[in-house]
Amino acid sequence: MKFNHYLASDFEQFEKQFRTNFINSLTGFKSANLVGTIGSDGQTNLAIFSQVFHLGANPALIGLIVRPDTAPRHTLENIMINRYFTLNHIGIDFYKQAHQTSARYQVSEFEACNLTPEFSNRHIAPYVKESHLKIGLELAERHHLEINGTILLIGKVVEVFIPEDVIGADGYIDIEKAGSVTCSSLDSYHTTCRLSRLSYAKPDKELIEIQV
Amino acid sequence: MKFNHYLASDFEQFEKQFRTNFINSLTGFKSANLVGTIGSDGQTNLAIFSQVFHLGANPALIGLIVRPDTAPRHTLENIMINRYFTLNHIGIDFYKQAHQTSARYQVSEFEACNLTPEFSNRHIAPYVKESHLKIGLELAERHHLEINGTILLIGKVVEVFIPEDVIGADGYIDIEKAGSVTCSSLDSYHTTCRLSRLSYAKPDKELIEIQV
Repeated sequence: MKFNHYLASDFEQFEKQFRTNFINSLTGFKSANLVGTIGSDGQTNLAIFSQVFHLGANPALIGLIVRPDTAPRHTLENIMINRYFTLNHIGIDFYKQAHQTSARYQVSEFEACNLTPEFSNRHIAPYVKESHLKIGLELAERHHLEINGTILLIGKVVEVFIPEDVIGADGYIDIEKAGSVTCSSLDSYHTTCRLSRLSYAKPDKELIEIQV
Repeated sequence: MKFNHYLASDFEQFEKQFRTNFINSLTGFKSANLVGTIGSDGQTNLAIFSQVFHLGANPALIGLIVRPDTAPRHTLENIMINRYFTLNHIGIDFYKQAHQTSARYQVSEFEACNLTPEFSNRHIAPYVKESHLKIGLELAERHHLEINGTILLIGKVVEVFIPEDVIGADGYIDIEKAGSVTCSSLDSYHTTCRLSRLSYAKPDKELIEIQV
């Protein structure tokens, strides 16, 4: 395999869009979620996010990176006002509509992208009816990342909606069977194919493949 | 589709391992990387991480969540001492060895899991020779997340090594072709299959599929 070697000083010489595509590719595959919020005027908002990550199981906490300078700026405003937001896994059957939410709309992205808002009686933020795995969160902590002005929001999971046939006996959720997609770089969407689940690793013990 | 509905109060009733598998599944597909570090005694360390995410393209910044109470605790110590660490994409051909690094070893995980340390002349941290996409980072910022004591480390990318045949004309890196895997929950590994790359979204403009 022939490797190219790039230094940070090379990145500065890259054409801007080349650099954006390139650097966004580096971290590997990402989660693909729609974040649903609502404004103080009652207008729903939907934005696609790939920087969503597990922070803890007990209490159940999820982190989200928000760029104040890019399209989903309403998301941040709405969360700061209403404290609640939703995460909705992007499915194979509506990933193009999900991608389209990144355009700068004046109207609600639900309407513009032909997705359906859905509400629970627990909080004010809208879910995406078309999504197969939906998470309701309450804002718990906010961090300003000095180095480039991005913001880390931490949400506490208040409720989840999951198809009953993808929850395993040991709590593992088969998001592949549920139809969740993954994404890479800024604009590439992928389905997945399981290699295997592996047993808990211990020194001097052979790994076993777990049946799903 | 029949949905199950769970509240935060239900999570508390879950058996511990069930809860861990369940909550770790919620965020969707994750990146799968090995983090390479070296201690003040010169012992190399390798740990698998799925909470790695893009933070910015210019400067190129990557975030990493570290749980001080779980296995990769040497990673944090070593980064705080030496300031440098590496990220190495996990490939299809060594994902079981990568998973095995999560066992609690006294010796270096490179040795225990039959992976090969490799060094550049730019910094002290070890790369994984078997990996096809390698990133060298310098610690730039650290945040303590009050709510559960986890730590966010932000690294500035100092160099990358990438196979030349996976870098597109517009900077997109085809990590699927390169052989990177994705993971879900705590122990499930998946290959991917591209649905498509989509054009930049604008209101009232049809999305176009970009050739890779």
